[in-house]
Amino acid sequence: MTIDGQTDPLPLTDEALARLDAYWRAANYLSVGQIYLLDNPLLREPLTLEHVKPRLLGHWGTTPGLNFVYVHLNRLVRERDLSVLYVTGPGHGGPGIVANTYLEGSYTEHYPDITQDAEGMRKLFRQFSFPGGIPSHTSPETPGSINEGGELGYALAHAYGAVFDNPDLVACCVVGDGEAETGTLAASWHSNKFLNPARDGAVLPVLHLNGYKIANPTVLARMPREELESLFVGYGYAPVFVEGDEPEAMHQRMAAALDDAVSEIQRIQRDAREDGVTERPRWPLVVLRSPKGWTGPEVVDGVQVEGTFRSHQVPLAGLADDPEHLAALEAWMRSYRPEELFDESGRLVPEVARLAPEGERRMGSNPHANGGLLLKDLRMPDWRDYAVEVPAPGAVTAEATRVMGRLLRDVMAMNPETFRVVGPDETASNRLSALFEVTDRAWMEPALETDAHLAPDGRVMEVLSEQLCQGWLEGYLLTGRHGLFSCYEAFIHIVDSMFNQHAKWLDVTRDIPWRRPLASLNYLLTSHVWRQDHNGFSHQDPGFIDFVVNKKAEVVRVYLPPDANTLLSVTDHCLRSRHYVNVIVAGKQPEPQYLDLDAAITHTAAGIGIWEWAGNDQHAEPDVVMACAGDVPTLETLAAVDLLRQHLPELKVRVVNVVDLMRLQPERTHPHGLSDRAFDALFTTDKPVIFAYHGYPWLIHRLTYSRTNHANFHVRGFVEEGSTTTPFDMVVRNGLDRFHLVMDVAERVPTVGPHGPHVHQTMRDRLVEHREYITRHGQDMPEVRDWVWPHEPASPSGVQGA
Amino acid sequence: MTIDGQTDPLPLTDEALARLDAYWRAANYLSVGQIYLLDNPLLREPLTLEHVKPRLLGHWGTTPGLNFVYVHLNRLVRERDLSVLYVTGPGHGGPGIVANTYLEGSYTEHYPDITQDAEGMRKLFRQFSFPGGIPSHTSPETPGSINEGGELGYALAHAYGAVFDNPDLVACCVVGDGEAETGTLAASWHSNKFLNPARDGAVLPVLHLNGYKIANPTVLARMPREELESLFVGYGYAPVFVEGDEPEAMHQRMAAALDDAVSEIQRIQRDAREDGVTERPRWPLVVLRSPKGWTGPEVVDGVQVEGTFRSHQVPLAGLADDPEHLAALEAWMRSYRPEELFDESGRLVPEVARLAPEGERRMGSNPHANGGLLLKDLRMPDWRDYAVEVPAPGAVTAEATRVMGRLLRDVMAMNPETFRVVGPDETASNRLSALFEVTDRAWMEPALETDAHLAPDGRVMEVLSEQLCQGWLEGYLLTGRHGLFSCYEAFIHIVDSMFNQHAKWLDVTRDIPWRRPLASLNYLLTSHVWRQDHNGFSHQDPGFIDFVVNKKAEVVRVYLPPDANTLLSVTDHCLRSRHYVNVIVAGKQPEPQYLDLDAAITHTAAGIGIWEWAGNDQHAEPDVVMACAGDVPTLETLAAVDLLRQHLPELKVRVVNVVDLMRLQPERTHPHGLSDRAFDALFTTDKPVIFAYHGYPWLIHRLTYSRTNHANFHVRGFVEEGSTTTPFDMVVRNGLDRFHLVMDVAERVPTVGPHGPHVHQTMRDRLVEHREYITRHGQDMPEVRDWVWPHEPASPSGVQGA
Repeated sequence: MTIDGQTDPLPLTDEALARLDAYWRAANYLSVGQIYLLDNPLLREPLTLEHVKPRLLGHWGTTPGLNFVYVHLNRLVRERDLSVLYVTGPGHGGPGIVANTYLEGSYTEHYPDITQDAEGMRKLFRQFSFPGGIPSHTSPETPGSINEGGELGYALAHAYGAVFDNPDLVACCVVGDGEAETGTLAASWHSNKFLNPARDGAVLPVLHLNGYKIANPTVLARMPREELESLFVGYGYAPVFVEGDEPEAMHQRMAAALDDAVSEIQRIQRDAREDGVTERPRWPLVVLRSPKGWTGPEVVDGVQVEGTFRSHQVPLAGLADDPEHLAALEAWMRSYRPEELFDESGRLVPEVARLAPEGERRMGSNPHANGGLLLKDLRMPDWRDYAVEVPAPGAVTAEATRVMGRLLRDVMAMNPETFRVVGPDETASNRLSALFEVTDRAWMEPALETDAHLAPDGRVMEVLSEQLCQGWLEGYLLTGRHGLFSCYEAFIHIVDSMFNQHAKWLDVTRDIPWRRPLASLNYLLTSHVWRQDHNGFSHQDPGFIDFVVNKKAEVVRVYLPPDANTLLSVTDHCLRSRHYVNVIVAGKQPEPQYLDLDAAITHTAAGIGIWEWAGNDQHAEPDVVMACAGDVPTLETLAAVDLLRQHLPELKVRVVNVVDLMRLQPERTHPHGLSDRAFDALFTTDKPVIFAYHGYPWLIHRLTYSRTNHANFHVRGFVEEGSTTTPFDMVVRNGLDRFHLVMDVAERVPTVGPHGPHVHQTMRDRLVEHREYITRHGQDMPEVRDWVWPHEPASPSGVQGA
Repeated sequence: MTIDGQTDPLPLTDEALARLDAYWRAANYLSVGQIYLLDNPLLREPLTLEHVKPRLLGHWGTTPGLNFVYVHLNRLVRERDLSVLYVTGPGHGGPGIVANTYLEGSYTEHYPDITQDAEGMRKLFRQFSFPGGIPSHTSPETPGSINEGGELGYALAHAYGAVFDNPDLVACCVVGDGEAETGTLAASWHSNKFLNPARDGAVLPVLHLNGYKIANPTVLARMPREELESLFVGYGYAPVFVEGDEPEAMHQRMAAALDDAVSEIQRIQRDAREDGVTERPRWPLVVLRSPKGWTGPEVVDGVQVEGTFRSHQVPLAGLADDPEHLAALEAWMRSYRPEELFDESGRLVPEVARLAPEGERRMGSNPHANGGLLLKDLRMPDWRDYAVEVPAPGAVTAEATRVMGRLLRDVMAMNPETFRVVGPDETASNRLSALFEVTDRAWMEPALETDAHLAPDGRVMEVLSEQLCQGWLEGYLLTGRHGLFSCYEAFIHIVDSMFNQHAKWLDVTRDIPWRRPLASLNYLLTSHVWRQDHNGFSHQDPGFIDFVVNKKAEVVRVYLPPDANTLLSVTDHCLRSRHYVNVIVAGKQPEPQYLDLDAAITHTAAGIGIWEWAGNDQHAEPDVVMACAGDVPTLETLAAVDLLRQHLPELKVRVVNVVDLMRLQPERTHPHGLSDRAFDALFTTDKPVIFAYHGYPWLIHRLTYSRTNHANFHVRGFVEEGSTTTPFDMVVRNGLDRFHLVMDVAERVPTVGPHGPHVHQTMRDRLVEHREYITRHGQDMPEVRDWVWPHEPASPSGVQGA
């Protein structure tokens, strides 16, 4: 045989080629079967309508290409004893991966009901994209998958995340040419600038140009070949093209390309590991150009289908109305010659089956794809050693995230191969720079003398793309490691949708017995809405919490520690937890500290509690409950309590602080939810509750609407009033400041009596004065000019107004 | 003078060069002044601490580069009489653009208080990044800006959106090398595949490599030069490099590069416009590599600052503690020689000032940057002509979006230069394909015979990136045109953050008198949560509504039309509206139709109303209110009413349907909000309300918690239970189905009396039966096997259970 003008030696012998092709035909056969058949799986009788699903739901277009790569990887894994994770980006690639994991035996091990015989095959076909069955994506139910591919664009970032700190792993990542148009994917190619060939494994991207999306050609498939090549050279890869549609030639080309690619990967790794990392290598990349719907019906009803967008879903539809379509389906399936591939019982014949690797080398059984199997607890220092001394509430100030940074530093040092911190260029800005005492930022490009903390073996991952940060971390967690994402609060919305998909993955995998729990995805949201005074309105958005709590209660947790010691405790808890998304919101600015170590332990363990030292309702029912969640709301609440004591000393005030926001929900709604009895004990059943909340105020209503005392809840929070202004003016604009809180009390508490209107007026005067200074650009009022908080008299409890 | 080995002819004469450089120095001087000074703007007295802002907030790093480009564009605009929009991506570029628009006179025209003299300059300096002043970004307050640059990554998509259908406009777009790491930006380079040189204007990207983000080098700046060049050749551009730090040489290089680029743009456009569009041109692109903080302090405290990340914000800080820093600031500012640049009064001297263009040619006064100025009403057909005949409620079925598509088709035909539809490859899938009767998809790559509806002058923009769709549409709207974004409901979350920023832009511009209202940003969310039966859980998310309603009530609107005629009416309304984000959620599947034309007019005008024909509470207080919002919830509610009539004929049922979701909010919270009196009239003050809602149920509680009857609201909606299953099973899994709704009534309505338990049990039996069939892969139950809805008896009202 001759291929591309070359004769011998071809990479595949005739026998090897025949086996590869047979295996591929088997995978394609099983893929078509899943899309179409309810019964008669081996076509041992003529195909009739009764054998066909009444509603055809599946996507043939991408499948033969995914199968082609899978089969070739099987050969390679076997010949070179590789550990390969197969990450497939194209949407609806499910049938192909299910087919392959079934052929290699992984599927039956995960789902014993789907046996390796005709009856098992019948069930395999029937369950696909069918009520009570499995989805058409490589969803969590699919062995070997870490990337669903339902929402497109995350495959390559997941693949890179998977190989960080996994030096022996190769993630072969098929990127669909549709997916390649997404933003996340377009940015993900640059991940090679952060991959260290000595310490990390390798990603082998296969850009699959099958030419079409749902109804359109793809941008990458229609670019001139030279531009495409130039693009990937520019991205830093060495692209190899495998193009065509004639199976035999394509097998030879693909085998040669993969042999070369793996050899090059191994050379790169050997050089780096033996001689040290000197520069970023040019990693190989395969461009596979094959027809959409390859080997499927070429022409249907006189219209070209193979190689066009018309084969995206089911190339043959309307079988009930058109006997020719039914005949075409049968001919198509028989073209794979199932009688040669499966034995009497319906099992893949041994001479084909032995192409597949064995045990954990099978891509459907690679333990990295079920990261919980490999997950080990983080080694953790004792967080109490990092606690801030707080001689009395409010007596000292600290930057909470800076304190947290010291804990993270030691977690990093104690777990040098299983913990990473990601973030968009903000680790230092978010005051976590203690991390740089023990590690650097990962960086494979040249570094200059004037740079700071860059190194190929850095473990902090910074890139100005929240999406890459998220995708990398997801890949890292999904393969059994730990991490934290620190982000400006407003801009975490950039990954809303990625969070969404990850939370859904966590939710679904709770019910898949062979999937083991993962480390939680931990967010630190800092540089938050109340301290974006200099960045302005575009940086002011606390709504990620609202977004998160729409997901299943079983997988989401939200914490608002009011100071450094509570932040330490929460961080420790989150890093030890499993299979959640933990959202921690905490400021980075100097703020008063309230709780000493013991108080922080008690308070974070309860998640919510009365701060007796701050109120004056001891041994009595309060007149009003001042509740707060978040550091700035806590500050303003305590300042308001000071004012109340000064102006209304007879008033009995209770202060309730909330760290664990989910405590507010009913216990039937969230595992952390308080019982109604416990809730009522804190918030009373009939007293006014003035609630100062970090985010959008209606979230508190949404969490508490069914509580006894809800009608008396008055919540203040962020109401989308923002700009470049002082921190105090930010709270004033949103009515969350001490003066508004006092006015709320004066209006709502009947026992305030005749003093109410006077106190109200006093507060209003302060606000008018404040507003006047601000609009005059604050030239006269020192607290505006110097951008500081107003100084209120210290309260009897010792809390400074800061 | 010699430059780059060349002597004459250099593009700039000595005089031209001197003027350019002087103008640049003036812009840099004003930029530094804004960051640092409260007073003494012209340095007519020695600089003291009293002249300096107590808190220094601003970003010098990117500014000199932005000024450099601005000044060079001024020359070009003047020499060639161009209409140029200056779109700047780098964050915190505000001081530079404010400085330039001040120098050219635009700023004073927009803000008469900021006069062109020393006092005006003092105010200009003081207001910057100061309480009561202006943000540090090119926020909406900045004349000439359509891109804030607070959240990074959208500049290039905005620039492309701006020039679509604006053949005479050039958008010069500075892309920061930080921003270039984001996903949206990385994808945006491919926008050239959708730009028609005959019909559209041109984008001239300037990739500004100043080397650093906040604390890190940038990926693009550290790539080898050959890779960078290859990358942009691969993206389809012809890159020209302008690199260096010596001002004179850089001026000559930049002038040459821009001259060539504009000549090439004009050649491309001329060829396309004279000879027709034959292929995608290679548009020019400038790579400007200049030091970060160029012309600022080189070394501070012995550490290199210019050309490093240390000049990102304020290169000189701590002035109060270090007199040397104060002296360095003064020396830095004086290095621009302000005494040569500004006359006695403080005005730019005429020989420098005449570099700037005049009138609307000034980039700060280009009307395209204030799109409302240019906005014209859409020509609209009469939507009533597209109405579906509905002889009786439920008597016919229709695909709502297909009906809407016909209206859009004619809107498109009647507005061939000012209306575009964007979407990620889903226009046909979302059943809007009537559009392709009058236009095609925009496509500049080669088309094949097997493709459908691709053309360089297509007006439907499809790319598999929701971010590009959003960015393009925003740019198109911001420059005074109209459009619609159709998207799968779940995946609109990909642009959460972009929506966020656009909504903030709309909100802020309501209060900027010179900004004219824009056309609304209209979303059609279809392929929604309830009909993702075949795509499964990853495609099931109705939470965008929750996200949207967190923004200012004044700019957001949400509509849930239950059928085709109401969808038509809502679409007509939204396309005519101004300065909102309109979210329309509607299904694309065949569904029963309820309202004829007249009823649809009445119902959508009210936004909420009692469907008298569906209930039986005429002339009486109902026993229960069955409320619904969304097409599938409406279907299930009506089917539940059928069951109630059958099983509990004596029960008085009221049906309330909600089209305009914001009607539920109190009138003080949203302009569309109902008064409490009107709300109570619909929902009663004390009867059970069973509310079937399209999305997450708690949103209804959040909107209605303060209503009189809220405690009796029982809301059903999507509770994150999803998979690949039948449409009816989807509603069952989430408890939104007819049987659950009837059970809710049976449990909650006291007048049901002794029949309640029996009805409850009957419904429960139906659900158990259903669940059994589903778990057996539905082989026996026809409605499961065929993926259809259960057939319930028609109600007396004539509504079919569908």
